[in-house]
Amino acid sequence: MARYKIVVEYDGSGFVGWQRQENGFGVQQALEEAVTAFSGETPRVFGAGRTDSGVHAMAQVSHFDLKKERCSDTVRDALNFHMKSLPVVVLETAIVDENFHSRFSATGRSYTYRITNRRAPLTIEKGKSWWVPVSLDAEAMHDAAQVLVGKHDFSSFRASICQSDSPVKTLNMLNVERDGEHVFIHAQARSFLHHQVRNFVGSLKKVGDGRWSTNDVKEALEAQDRRAAGETAPADGLYLTGVSY
Amino acid sequence: MARYKIVVEYDGSGFVGWQRQENGFGVQQALEEAVTAFSGETPRVFGAGRTDSGVHAMAQVSHFDLKKERCSDTVRDALNFHMKSLPVVVLETAIVDENFHSRFSATGRSYTYRITNRRAPLTIEKGKSWWVPVSLDAEAMHDAAQVLVGKHDFSSFRASICQSDSPVKTLNMLNVERDGEHVFIHAQARSFLHHQVRNFVGSLKKVGDGRWSTNDVKEALEAQDRRAAGETAPADGLYLTGVSY
Repeated sequence: MARYKIVVEYDGSGFVGWQRQENGFGVQQALEEAVTAFSGETPRVFGAGRTDSGVHAMAQVSHFDLKKERCSDTVRDALNFHMKSLPVVVLETAIVDENFHSRFSATGRSYTYRITNRRAPLTIEKGKSWWVPVSLDAEAMHDAAQVLVGKHDFSSFRASICQSDSPVKTLNMLNVERDGEHVFIHAQARSFLHHQVRNFVGSLKKVGDGRWSTNDVKEALEAQDRRAAGETAPADGLYLTGVSY
Repeated sequence: MARYKIVVEYDGSGFVGWQRQENGFGVQQALEEAVTAFSGETPRVFGAGRTDSGVHAMAQVSHFDLKKERCSDTVRDALNFHMKSLPVVVLETAIVDENFHSRFSATGRSYTYRITNRRAPLTIEKGKSWWVPVSLDAEAMHDAAQVLVGKHDFSSFRASICQSDSPVKTLNMLNVERDGEHVFIHAQARSFLHHQVRNFVGSLKKVGDGRWSTNDVKEALEAQDRRAAGETAPADGLYLTGVSY
């Protein structure tokens, strides 16, 4: 038996999200079918972050077991061959210790949210960024974001369908930076609640366009009530950028 | 009468190219129909660079005349409204002197070619970059590219259907740089022959993967024969990035 750790990139607009689902095609299912196609085996494929429908990944980390051990480069190329009509690829493959678990061994997840802040709608970036036509103050957004960093009850930024045991999480980083017409929000934590990053972005947008102050973000956090925070930003702009172990 | 200069962005994969054509939908036609839809007038829309099918633009420059003068911001928003289902937008609009001609007044055109140089196929960048799985030496490509800079007969890099009066052009810049898994080729000249940048890229790839030396590029240039140079790189990776006046 060998355990394979794989790093996966995908365009989320082609999937119902990471998880295998009855109402559509998940990234997990694409990977499981590709594993079966080349190996004849039917292992479960686990992932570090259960990204939602439309959310992209630059570096999702996943793992699965095969009874028959194969060279890791062969596994990578075989999976890519069998997924060649799908918007998902395996970037790297490594054989790891059988104590490794892509989800439970993870010590950190990084996400980047991309906003295109300009008057004109999107063409080349359509589906890959959130179009915000009203001018955003990225420095004010960054300052307000610092209120959210640290260990807090994040109930105000948690989707009602979230399955996490507790709304208390420790946010290590929430940086906002402008690069030309783009505003990037970088978030890092051990783990996130369902929709947490997108709900952060929705509230920070209210700061960026001048409707909210830093203190409004603080009050939204302290309310511990989803209705106190901003809208959920669209999936289009969200990228899972890395998982650390 | 007022002449409008517009800066246009588009995803070339949705069009047969810049020019209005009988076999499909060109960017020019999209703009002309949008102008007519909001103004009732039917001017010809001219463009600085006649990009091919699949080639993208970050900043194509175009112009047209309207008998009735309108505020330039109104024109931009009206065009974007009427093109909202298409992958083309107007980024900027300005009223210009009637001596201005987007094509004939242009003193320089800039293109960037994007290569994704990695083993795994593309997902998020599909259609937006050229996937080259074999490792490329970007420094060697840059060195070889310098042979092409200057005033030369570029017949070896000219498509057979090119309508230019002369194969002699002056290339001001051809820089190759690596940024992680990406290799960018930046080209700048007063004007280019048909397929010139894509033919440069096809030859530079032969240098990058070790099949050609700088001297082979020099010999290809001096042959003044299309068959002496490398393949035409795909349209996917090519972006018209700017036009100067």
